[in-house]
Amino acid sequence: MPLFKNRIPRAVVALTGSILLGFCSVHANPILPSWADGAARANVLQFIDKVTDKSNADYVKPTDRVAVFDNDGTLWAEQPIYFQMMYAFDQVRARLDQNPEWKEKEPFRSALANDYEGVLKSGEKGILELVMATHAGMSTEEYAESVAQWIATAKHPSTGRMIKEMVYQPMLELLELMREEEFVTYIVSGGGVDFMRVFAEEVYGIPPEQVIGSRLEVEFTNEGGIPTLMRKAKIDFIDDKGGKPVGIHTHIGKRPIACFGNSDGDLAMMQWTHAGEGARFCMYIHHTDEKREWAYDHPSAIGHFEKGLNEAKEQQWTVVDMKRDWINIFPNKQKTTK
Amino acid sequence: MPLFKNRIPRAVVALTGSILLGFCSVHANPILPSWADGAARANVLQFIDKVTDKSNADYVKPTDRVAVFDNDGTLWAEQPIYFQMMYAFDQVRARLDQNPEWKEKEPFRSALANDYEGVLKSGEKGILELVMATHAGMSTEEYAESVAQWIATAKHPSTGRMIKEMVYQPMLELLELMREEEFVTYIVSGGGVDFMRVFAEEVYGIPPEQVIGSRLEVEFTNEGGIPTLMRKAKIDFIDDKGGKPVGIHTHIGKRPIACFGNSDGDLAMMQWTHAGEGARFCMYIHHTDEKREWAYDHPSAIGHFEKGLNEAKEQQWTVVDMKRDWINIFPNKQKTTK
Repeated sequence: MPLFKNRIPRAVVALTGSILLGFCSVHANPILPSWADGAARANVLQFIDKVTDKSNADYVKPTDRVAVFDNDGTLWAEQPIYFQMMYAFDQVRARLDQNPEWKEKEPFRSALANDYEGVLKSGEKGILELVMATHAGMSTEEYAESVAQWIATAKHPSTGRMIKEMVYQPMLELLELMREEEFVTYIVSGGGVDFMRVFAEEVYGIPPEQVIGSRLEVEFTNEGGIPTLMRKAKIDFIDDKGGKPVGIHTHIGKRPIACFGNSDGDLAMMQWTHAGEGARFCMYIHHTDEKREWAYDHPSAIGHFEKGLNEAKEQQWTVVDMKRDWINIFPNKQKTTK
Repeated sequence: MPLFKNRIPRAVVALTGSILLGFCSVHANPILPSWADGAARANVLQFIDKVTDKSNADYVKPTDRVAVFDNDGTLWAEQPIYFQMMYAFDQVRARLDQNPEWKEKEPFRSALANDYEGVLKSGEKGILELVMATHAGMSTEEYAESVAQWIATAKHPSTGRMIKEMVYQPMLELLELMREEEFVTYIVSGGGVDFMRVFAEEVYGIPPEQVIGSRLEVEFTNEGGIPTLMRKAKIDFIDDKGGKPVGIHTHIGKRPIACFGNSDGDLAMMQWTHAGEGARFCMYIHHTDEKREWAYDHPSAIGHFEKGLNEAKEQQWTVVDMKRDWINIFPNKQKTTK
């Protein structure tokens, strides 16, 4: 991809980010076109500009331009339930013949009925049971194939969009812009790493080795001379809350300079990012648009956002108001109806 | 870095790899100059050539050119004991004032005496105790700083070389060549990931995010508003034997196409690499040079190499005979004496 700085002179970029904000239409390739004029857009552009400008005291060399993005609620939607759970429900249906007892047993019964509330009521234990029954007991390759088949056709129950098109257009633009500016973009999500890796490259342009997530244990076997990685019904790592900076350290071994999230589950990685030396950027996405998407924060079981919102105010992190700051929510400028 | 294929016409490369082997001196930049003419050099050059040649049926696109390298005994030496253990011994010495009981307690007493045999006699339990006492109970940043200080001055007890110069010149050349040919080079080692990351970029040109290794548990804390990753005295993951393909999967999410190792601990990742579809390359380094380095294989506690050697013969993997195949062992063409 051509570098941003090669396409558009840096001075224009700087002006665009600070003074000429909103007058991008003069460019063949407007910058962040789905972002409304305002502080959120200006802040992220200013940050990108200063860390990529060699004459700036905040300059950061490309290999240290590590940017981490939560997935659920930050890069794609997460309502009415995490999309990976929808995959689990569909797998319960597909395996019902081999497990007829599921018809009478929670949380499987609720999953079969697409009763999200019922599944959530089963709590962490029930959700874990559902995940183990549908994500383990097969090789990594069988699992990837199963997810690939699902994501190729799965649709969202209320918008009717493809699940893989429930992604946020403004964030796709930001990911691309940052990569053009030689940032390395990572997903750091509570979702399953092997689930996301199946589609992250196609959907976000993020290759498998830049996806960090929760993991089941994997075991190497070589039965009959066929080397296989088997997925075990045991949690290996939960990449959420304090797990996020740990996952980042394990995987990257560097502290990010930019962090994007939407819930209290992202707060620890925000703090970890923020506390590093030099220029740092933390952005929270606040789901405020009940018409075009969903409006929720702290009373929500999914995407609970309360401590993070308070700390964002204290620390003066950038908070995106989706209703105000995003011109488009989903790709293709389609109007979505729920 | 300029691409190999831009520097030297592909036809010449092909000829160099097959027919003109050994006549590289006509080039300004000879290819793998520390590798003697022979099957090992020819095999790896042929492999690199075919997977990077778009007109070849075995062509592999750059993002899938994943090459994994064991560290101890493959990229640098591992005798008379793993170098990370030498770091541990030096840390025991440095902390003796706070732990005077170590003087009388194994394996610390042996460590203080640089008695490698004595430490090895304490078995896995003793070695683990030594690791925990010297690698845990501090932040990731404190640990990295401690390793950085050590590696800056540490010398090998018998060769007198800097530890960071106990690396294999032929492998440095191979790493560089493969990266010029758009391979992504990873370390996959039983050694500690946070230990290797401190020097892997300087020594091998391999950045932190491409180092996979064994791990202690790390915990996020935010006491007094200072986000910290603390190293716990608990093993999180052992990146050895069957752990190597698991570590590769966890970290990269792709199967390598090329694998380099020297012991039975590397066999599982060799098998995992070999079993993938398309062109694959597996190379074992056999330590056969008792004059310039060390000669050892299956009777050795360190770098035990027996099953791997047998399977290499069966599968026709390339085996480097260090005495025969490497013109230089260590950098700078210095003659080393033990």
